[in-house]
Amino acid sequence: MATTRGTSASVVAVRFDGSALRAIDQTALPGREQELELRSAADVAAAIQRLSIRGAPLIGVAGAYGIVVELSRDPSSEALERARETLRDARPTAVNLRAAVDRVYTAARAAGPDRRAAALSEARAIEAEEEAASDAIAAHGADLLAAARRILTHCNTGALAAPRRGTALAVIAELADRGTLDHVLATESRPLLQGARLTAYELARLNISHELIVDSAAAGLIAGGAVDAVIVGCDRVAANGDVANKVGTYGLALAARAADVPFVVAGPTSTIDPETPTGAEITIEERDAEEVRSLSGRCITLESTPCRNPAFDVTPAALVTALVTERGAIRSPRAESLDALRPR
Amino acid sequence: MATTRGTSASVVAVRFDGSALRAIDQTALPGREQELELRSAADVAAAIQRLSIRGAPLIGVAGAYGIVVELSRDPSSEALERARETLRDARPTAVNLRAAVDRVYTAARAAGPDRRAAALSEARAIEAEEEAASDAIAAHGADLLAAARRILTHCNTGALAAPRRGTALAVIAELADRGTLDHVLATESRPLLQGARLTAYELARLNISHELIVDSAAAGLIAGGAVDAVIVGCDRVAANGDVANKVGTYGLALAARAADVPFVVAGPTSTIDPETPTGAEITIEERDAEEVRSLSGRCITLESTPCRNPAFDVTPAALVTALVTERGAIRSPRAESLDALRPR
Repeated sequence: MATTRGTSASVVAVRFDGSALRAIDQTALPGREQELELRSAADVAAAIQRLSIRGAPLIGVAGAYGIVVELSRDPSSEALERARETLRDARPTAVNLRAAVDRVYTAARAAGPDRRAAALSEARAIEAEEEAASDAIAAHGADLLAAARRILTHCNTGALAAPRRGTALAVIAELADRGTLDHVLATESRPLLQGARLTAYELARLNISHELIVDSAAAGLIAGGAVDAVIVGCDRVAANGDVANKVGTYGLALAARAADVPFVVAGPTSTIDPETPTGAEITIEERDAEEVRSLSGRCITLESTPCRNPAFDVTPAALVTALVTERGAIRSPRAESLDALRPR
Repeated sequence: MATTRGTSASVVAVRFDGSALRAIDQTALPGREQELELRSAADVAAAIQRLSIRGAPLIGVAGAYGIVVELSRDPSSEALERARETLRDARPTAVNLRAAVDRVYTAARAAGPDRRAAALSEARAIEAEEEAASDAIAAHGADLLAAARRILTHCNTGALAAPRRGTALAVIAELADRGTLDHVLATESRPLLQGARLTAYELARLNISHELIVDSAAAGLIAGGAVDAVIVGCDRVAANGDVANKVGTYGLALAARAADVPFVVAGPTSTIDPETPTGAEITIEERDAEEVRSLSGRCITLESTPCRNPAFDVTPAALVTALVTERGAIRSPRAESLDALRPR
């Protein structure tokens, strides 16, 4: 298999054009590449709610610019208050949406009549920080995985989930740029198929050699020696290093451990939650049964079939070979090593 | 959760009505319950090839009756030869299709002009043997799992895969009949969704409390204590007890072991292959990438996305808590205990 050489043609999921926030509609991918033009806080909030914009770091940046576009229409202090209320609870789970919106709101309110300029400056700062974090995660992860030529990844952790090149997929893109990557196996990630719809799309754009697999094929392929490493993102890391991430992550960690293949988790330090002692305290969101029962709007079972739909699972820290953040990579994280990485 | 009480309303996948073989078209399930009327060996072979009839034991029985329906049209020795050729290679993998066809052929050829009567007698004997095997597997498995009130299963191993009530799903149905079963978690079994389409349908007909899950949700649910046991079927068991079964089985075995939950494999002794020393010698069939790329005929990724599609994986014997056959249940099988179970 020839070494795959990545290009820099990663997708730009959201960008502020000076007046509107332009966003790729992720619900239409990969069938249609359709750009939304969001001109109010309500527009941005609706795009986040319907998952046209998704991924925790990305919806933080979108929320920040949501305040700016609202102030472009109406620069009053009342508009600022309204924009904040509209945006900060657009989705409840991602803590960084609320954090980013509040940061921009606070800067704008302190600026008085210059509130739009202050909001824009703060939103740009947040975006720049997230871009820098992605670049740093990519570099640290690629250093760690320099010897891994074939990598398996799960769900979507690329430019459609976070600014720049994302998290776990940014590491893969960096390895391709460095010319050391041969091939990627991407899981489809049922029920919402972020792997099949978004990761396969990103890998194709990046010109990275890849194959899509059903989720349950991963364990046997890992056992058979098909990959040198597994890398995934994270939704929340507990203080003891347990990792909550997209459902299916735990099974990949078990398979990697059984095959003695490194299992690497990548994400910004903002996902580390020192208030959660262990994975046992992380509440696993159960989503709508309809996501399991249907696919692209088509029912795949009896209409009456009851379903369970946990969106996440918890991987014990003992199964994680390394955690890669923008501040470096830690092998075999335990509570002590994670303490050093807490957001200041 | 109330104890679920099974009914005896299990589906009859194929039945010989004296002249035609009547089969439920499994490709139309669960949307339509449509009966095929197969009146020639070519009809039966085509139904097997397009997966209207599937499951190794079931296609063996269908193949046996395929000779009978052909001889009902034309009782000549030439027709017997043609029927055998048409049927025995309709699908290449299932060794018992060929075995059943050859058994009926040999009996018919020895009978001379009474060949149709001899073929019918032999086909009925094969069907009766498979029915008895299913009943015995159900009883032995239910004895073994008497204490398991919540069970997870994978793919379809019920009345749509084998005569009577099937294999692993027959054990579940027997536990429901005995009144000791509370609930079943059924994996959807991508790519072809035999769990979502067929197992959910059978469990609903049997009035057994159940929920459908995506395949990758199983590991986290097992870790979280959602089930007392996992039971699956098998496509081939090597001499050392390694088990080849539907892709995803190995991951379930890893999760069960990590949670100290029994992982039970059910199947007739005819699936034990003493000629294959270990799982490493079992060739894993790679099926058409289109099965991964699309769902119900709809593309779920880019049309150009390359896919890998291993249909099976191998579970090491060390992860199997017990193997249940029609001749009994063996805990922690090793080569020695399997030797005793070889087909005579």
